[in-house]
Amino acid sequence: MNRSELVDQIKTKRSFLCVGLDTDLEKIPKHLLEYDDPIFEFNKRIIDATKDYAVAYKPNIAFYESQGPKGWESLRKTLDYIPENIFTIADAKRGDIGNTSAMYAKTFFDHYNFDSITIAPYMGHDSVEPFKKEGKWTIVLALTSNPGANDFQLLKTESGNRVFEEVIEKNRQWSDPDQLMFVVGATRGELIGEVRKAAPDNFFLVPGVGKQGGSLEDVAKLGMIEDCGLLVNSSRGIIYASNQKDFAEKASEKAAAIQAEMSTLLERFNVC
Amino acid sequence: MNRSELVDQIKTKRSFLCVGLDTDLEKIPKHLLEYDDPIFEFNKRIIDATKDYAVAYKPNIAFYESQGPKGWESLRKTLDYIPENIFTIADAKRGDIGNTSAMYAKTFFDHYNFDSITIAPYMGHDSVEPFKKEGKWTIVLALTSNPGANDFQLLKTESGNRVFEEVIEKNRQWSDPDQLMFVVGATRGELIGEVRKAAPDNFFLVPGVGKQGGSLEDVAKLGMIEDCGLLVNSSRGIIYASNQKDFAEKASEKAAAIQAEMSTLLERFNVC
Repeated sequence: MNRSELVDQIKTKRSFLCVGLDTDLEKIPKHLLEYDDPIFEFNKRIIDATKDYAVAYKPNIAFYESQGPKGWESLRKTLDYIPENIFTIADAKRGDIGNTSAMYAKTFFDHYNFDSITIAPYMGHDSVEPFKKEGKWTIVLALTSNPGANDFQLLKTESGNRVFEEVIEKNRQWSDPDQLMFVVGATRGELIGEVRKAAPDNFFLVPGVGKQGGSLEDVAKLGMIEDCGLLVNSSRGIIYASNQKDFAEKASEKAAAIQAEMSTLLERFNVC
Repeated sequence: MNRSELVDQIKTKRSFLCVGLDTDLEKIPKHLLEYDDPIFEFNKRIIDATKDYAVAYKPNIAFYESQGPKGWESLRKTLDYIPENIFTIADAKRGDIGNTSAMYAKTFFDHYNFDSITIAPYMGHDSVEPFKKEGKWTIVLALTSNPGANDFQLLKTESGNRVFEEVIEKNRQWSDPDQLMFVVGATRGELIGEVRKAAPDNFFLVPGVGKQGGSLEDVAKLGMIEDCGLLVNSSRGIIYASNQKDFAEKASEKAAAIQAEMSTLLERFNVC
């Protein structure tokens, strides 16, 4: 999916919500465990319940991988079930030497047909390069939402840049903003504005709203640009809103409430 | 496997060779494609041919993952086939927020019973912490063998440390040297000695000898410590020494030649 198609979806749905599919057998409603593939059954109902409010889905690959070969089948079925006009993100945080990154790209772009993949930048340009592909996006970790972001990402370097700014600057030299997003945690407060300065025209994938404590309004205030430029993720807050038989209904209500807030913000910041 | 067991193996076999199982359907001998599970059949023969010379095997997870669910079955069979007294490394380069890293740890340590996993440190302490487990090792990327290592790992920070030194210093605060290794590329020349200064008692996993151009002698000279402290990896140079019916024999010859050189180095630097 290209940038203008993504922006069209955002304007049509008046939403920049990404729903994280961190599907965990220990957290889904017990009655689903009777099915052959409880993970897919759960995802299917969550997708049906939220697809009018979400412009992106982000399966967290760790959760599928931990189920062994069966988990990868659940992932494939989930991908096949996501409507064509919704953006898909493989939250995999891969990155390795060139020939290995090429293998990861093949897996997620060719075999599973994801629109994008999250990338850990530590190994530099030749670890990112193989993910550059016509019609696909790389989403590079810049400033993450977790406490450990302070350990290395915020270190100041000789140039005056902090490490996350170096990551942004170099990745922007390597890739077109229409195929390159950055992960920016909603929990980073004022720093979101500094990331926006470093990357004025890239989309941000923003985790950390909800359970992790980030504010949607602050994210929009500091990070929103003319064509929105934001995908804000919520995982647990939506998909585990209830663990009873009404889980899909509750997920739908949560997604609708976030979408309503997003609609107001899109209007307030003149996106649509 | 704990440190003294690993060192025993090194002394018994007079080797610190790790064989990288980057098994690729496009590169293995054609006659194996007739089997139900060519990847496992290849690995089995490579293991049989090299197990007397190797103290570790390192499947590169990207190569298995790219084969879909079937690839994960090949990986499991491979792990089951590796002799108990040989150290196993999941070369996965994972790392994510706590609950997700915990899922990755579950996959590789519990389901596949690997002794260790490679970790990308960009997300900091809470992304590494879940991999700390009794009897298991984390292998953190410090200074990698690829050209992109220059992009971020070598940036000098305000403290005077370069980023890779910060990674080493902090990880050493978080983990015991008997459960923490670092990835240090054989291609980094004199820098290997500086990494050794920063991490005087950690094992290093060293890629980059062979196809990538690093020298085994230099690695030993700059990195070897009293109990060896090195696992030097060779992947393509051994497993693809031939793509004909004699591939296992050729792999065995290559591994034996490397082991012979290692034996000399272990003697020269008074390890055994």
